[in-house]
Amino acid sequence: MNARMLTAEALGTLLLVAAVVGSGIMAETLTGDVALALLANTIATAAALVMLITVLGPISGAHFNPAVTLVFTLRGEVAVTTAVAMVAAQCAGGVAGSWLAHLMFEQPVLQASTHIRTGGAQWLAEGVATFGLILSILGAIRAQANVAIVVALWITAAYWFTASTSFANPAVALARGFSDTFAGIRPVDLPGFWAAQVIGALAGMVLGGWLFRNDDQDSARV
Amino acid sequence: MNARMLTAEALGTLLLVAAVVGSGIMAETLTGDVALALLANTIATAAALVMLITVLGPISGAHFNPAVTLVFTLRGEVAVTTAVAMVAAQCAGGVAGSWLAHLMFEQPVLQASTHIRTGGAQWLAEGVATFGLILSILGAIRAQANVAIVVALWITAAYWFTASTSFANPAVALARGFSDTFAGIRPVDLPGFWAAQVIGALAGMVLGGWLFRNDDQDSARV
Amino acid sequence: MNARMLTAEALGTLLLVAAVVGSGIMAETLTGDVALALLANTIATAAALVMLITVLGPISGAHFNPAVTLVFTLRGEVAVTTAVAMVAAQCAGGVAGSWLAHLMFEQPVLQASTHIRTGGAQWLAEGVATFGLILSILGAIRAQANVAIVVALWITAAYWFTASTSFANPAVALARGFSDTFAGIRPVDLPGFWAAQVIGALAGMVLGGWLFRNDDQDSARV
Amino acid sequence: MNARMLTAEALGTLLLVAAVVGSGIMAETLTGDVALALLANTIATAAALVMLITVLGPISGAHFNPAVTLVFTLRGEVAVTTAVAMVAAQCAGGVAGSWLAHLMFEQPVLQASTHIRTGGAQWLAEGVATFGLILSILGAIRAQANVAIVVALWITAAYWFTASTSFANPAVALARGFSDTFAGIRPVDLPGFWAAQVIGALAGMVLGGWLFRNDDQDSARV
Repeated sequence: MNARMLTAEALGTLLLVAAVVGSGIMAETLTGDVALALLANTIATAAALVMLITVLGPISGAHFNPAVTLVFTLRGEVAVTTAVAMVAAQCAGGVAGSWLAHLMFEQPVLQASTHIRTGGAQWLAEGVATFGLILSILGAIRAQANVAIVVALWITAAYWFTASTSFANPAVALARGFSDTFAGIRPVDLPGFWAAQVIGALAGMVLGGWLFRNDDQDSARV
Repeated sequence: MNARMLTAEALGTLLLVAAVVGSGIMAETLTGDVALALLANTIATAAALVMLITVLGPISGAHFNPAVTLVFTLRGEVAVTTAVAMVAAQCAGGVAGSWLAHLMFEQPVLQASTHIRTGGAQWLAEGVATFGLILSILGAIRAQANVAIVVALWITAAYWFTASTSFANPAVALARGFSDTFAGIRPVDLPGFWAAQVIGALAGMVLGGWLFRNDDQDSARV
Repeated sequence: MNARMLTAEALGTLLLVAAVVGSGIMAETLTGDVALALLANTIATAAALVMLITVLGPISGAHFNPAVTLVFTLRGEVAVTTAVAMVAAQCAGGVAGSWLAHLMFEQPVLQASTHIRTGGAQWLAEGVATFGLILSILGAIRAQANVAIVVALWITAAYWFTASTSFANPAVALARGFSDTFAGIRPVDLPGFWAAQVIGALAGMVLGGWLFRNDDQDSARV
Repeated sequence: MNARMLTAEALGTLLLVAAVVGSGIMAETLTGDVALALLANTIATAAALVMLITVLGPISGAHFNPAVTLVFTLRGEVAVTTAVAMVAAQCAGGVAGSWLAHLMFEQPVLQASTHIRTGGAQWLAEGVATFGLILSILGAIRAQANVAIVVALWITAAYWFTASTSFANPAVALARGFSDTFAGIRPVDLPGFWAAQVIGALAGMVLGGWLFRNDDQDSARV
């Protein structure tokens, strides 16, 4: 853990949330077609993800996501103290990202979302989205593929096929609670999303750990 | 054949169908413009395909498609018993994918599509789509290119230029028969699609086998 | 020159034109918004281009375009007799591609476009589009970059920023003359487009030959 | 500095501006939905950026942007006299790009934009956009990633999440001042944009210089 690593996590989450929230504001302003707004939101999010993971990956691993940090901590690849600092940086950066978006679009900086996102179907969707995110990361590492692109494409798909539009990230969800715009989520709905995200991440870790293990002798014995 | 391989085929087809069906539901809910809905459906499908083929390819070959498994079996690269188990896993996973999409969008789990898709023009379209899919796979392998990206781009194009919107996959077609939503197909129309897909796949195998053979001495004699 | 090479040129141009014409028909059927139709047309064309150039490139060079074949012939990289056979294969394949699209969409096979595309501004646009296409190819080869992706991205941009929507290909233009749909061009307007394309290609060859030459000693003397 | 390098900078900026301005004109002509127009504008810009940076990068570094040239000059990687000539080539090429777009779309060649873009929120947005652009470049170099793709994806995101739609380039901004179309900016608003772009670029240089330095011993001491 060092200052550059925490700066990378905070900055990456800040710019990611600014892209998510800001593109939602822009799109909602320019069109009345919600599908078109979600499409713009999807493209901006995916593009920002590839750029941020690519350039900040070598500095901090480019988690920008407490669920990802949790998985790597449980796998023993990140120390617990480092993980706590990373999550704090992600949450602080994320909230600052909402504020930056508001400033750029001349909106009140401090907002609380009134966008209702709750119920079993939404939680299932969040679980699936985060499950797939962890599979994307562990699988791309195993396949020696470009993690930034694989993750961005999963999020692209999940924005559309999960009913929750795939937050899949507790820090980004928290930050979106601070924005009463297209991408917002009512703060009272956050705990349900967080729980679903953690459960999905753990399921992805367990299944991915088995699917993507590199021990080929073992696999022959299955 | 082992448990990880069959799990990869089932899970991959499940998530692929969830992406196809779920993004169709989402898009149809958000817009009245069918072209925009198909665009969202296209993007979600292609993005999911790249992610799933990339991460599950090293585990099972990432067929997710009985027509692809048939071709590799006929080419002697997959054993018949393995192929039968893979196809069963693909079909089971695919149907579960439709159900997962329904659950996420609070729809009745069990549905049968009423979307009519039949006739010679549709079958020709399915044949072309599956023919091109097999050419994409065999050609990308021959060119040592990224199979995941080449396949996803073919499907992207074929969603738009084939009149059937390119199912090109008997297991995904079966699963879409179980969903009375944007991406559905009336179960009674399935056999026609399946026949067209198999014929297209075989044509792609024959032409691709000749076009992409590596024997350069032979080619000089043509 | 051999049968596989000419088959690759004919098949590639056939599928490319089917993608261009077919996606135009599909889009025009599904929406009244012409920008959305052009967007779908763009995406289908670019996706097909990457797939076709990637898999058929190792077989024939994946020209699919008489202007490209002309440039490589003038550069001494393709024999004149080979070039003539390639152009014939491209034109025959292209026209067959329009017919295939018509068959898939249950339209009369034989059509002649009534879409007027003429005048100095359109010709300038075609010249710019083909100039940039040749720069893309020569520059990507010089940079050892992925020619398929660079070409597809140039065409993506040129569909939107050239007033002619960037045909940039005499064989594809010919084939589009045979389709009275979204992507068509009135046959009487073809000679103007062909002339502009050839002039643009030659300009791209001359400028690209100078810009991308590999002789670094020479360049120091400029 | 040589003729090929300056030609590459002028030609690249010319085609980039033609793509930005031309796609804006095309989109505005085809649809009344501003979000859809911006989406087309985004896609054309990003696609042109990847092509131009890829093919012209080996010739001139493919700056096409005085803010980028400024940063590399301050970092001691470009000589001051070279930088001055490059910026002149970029500005001349950019303005010619607007004129080319006007010619292709049969508009008066000489125009001055009346599109108001001013105020603190817009300047903040331009600063963020240019800051991120410099981070993209320095970070992609550090990560040995594809600079063309990383830059194009940042611009894709920034078109949507910055309130100014991310000009992030003083030469392109100047050229857009010469076009009273979708992508224009009132000439009197240019100095505010230029100042914001330079400040954002310098901030990106300072933060990026620290984040992406390669001295790993030093980083351990932070």
